[in-house]
Amino acid sequence: MAASKDKDKAKIGEAAWARMDKVNSELLSLTYGALVAQLLRDAPSPEEASAQLERMGYNIGVRLVEEFLARSGARAAGPCRDVAETAETVAKVAFKMFLGVSATVASASAEHREFSVAFDENPLAEFAELPEALAGGARLQYSNVLCGVIRGALEMLQLRVECRFVRDVLAGADTNEIRVVVKEFMADDKPPDAE
Amino acid sequence: MAASKDKDKAKIGEAAWARMDKVNSELLSLTYGALVAQLLRDAPSPEEASAQLERMGYNIGVRLVEEFLARSGARAAGPCRDVAETAETVAKVAFKMFLGVSATVASASAEHREFSVAFDENPLAEFAELPEALAGGARLQYSNVLCGVIRGALEMLQLRVECRFVRDVLAGADTNEIRVVVKEFMADDKPPDAE
Repeated sequence: MAASKDKDKAKIGEAAWARMDKVNSELLSLTYGALVAQLLRDAPSPEEASAQLERMGYNIGVRLVEEFLARSGARAAGPCRDVAETAETVAKVAFKMFLGVSATVASASAEHREFSVAFDENPLAEFAELPEALAGGARLQYSNVLCGVIRGALEMLQLRVECRFVRDVLAGADTNEIRVVVKEFMADDKPPDAE
Repeated sequence: MAASKDKDKAKIGEAAWARMDKVNSELLSLTYGALVAQLLRDAPSPEEASAQLERMGYNIGVRLVEEFLARSGARAAGPCRDVAETAETVAKVAFKMFLGVSATVASASAEHREFSVAFDENPLAEFAELPEALAGGARLQYSNVLCGVIRGALEMLQLRVECRFVRDVLAGADTNEIRVVVKEFMADDKPPDAE
């Protein structure tokens, strides 16, 4: 049952991906690299640049959620039933639709208030080479925009979350992993797809 | 003859596009928007922000040209014979490969030292809304990164050019047009595809 649901989400992701307008991923990777470099030049610290990337991602997520609802079929299907389904939808539908890569759900908590999105390929970091001082990965969260995108998009769907990179290939890990912690189920007094 | 060559370039562009790794174009559009907004905050003037976008584009073009040579089949086919073929290759192969859009060559000069690349759809500006003060388009060249990409890539192929937006849909024009002026055929003492 769970396996068949997984397969369904993967199928929905593939179908939505086929409908998306696309550009070359290296163009995104290099453009994103220019943005990170600019923030590093301006911000007082790598930590602050990371926080700015997260905030930029939040604004992007707030915009992308409309596209997600329109093209994934999620608007017609109705809201996710629980956090477990939300996790599957983020990993298998949203990651595929926007980044063209497959992600999986890992280490979901028994109470379903936390989950991880794990993915091997990260198109944002494809060309990234960090200078020695930043290579540890603890100070600069290079791809932090993704954490912001997830937070912004889920907040528009009445789910307040916090996200952070817990593993990053760029920092020497064997895969990428974003930890998502649900902080609040927000009051559903306006529908998620209100304009 | 010219028409059949055009069709060949369009075919090469389509085939190369099919081989490229892709992401959703809105993600690029919103990421690029964040970059432009950041530069506008930091730069002393919109003109300076435009110049910075062009320089960033130059660095991106220097990187993308390798991908272009590897995936377009251009390395095998050998260098373009003249500026007219270069123009067709930029418009029909490179634009398609990286942006997923078709462009055309317009207003080529009789002496083949100038040409325009015209394109209706600009994935970078898909979501852009300029504030009133910038909407005229004369001060901020929103998509100036594209001028830089063309300049950087062609310089790696021994052709020094200057590029500028002469029409921009974002500034109210009916199409986008980048004017490319050849300044110098550089000495070919190292091959264009030297590592």
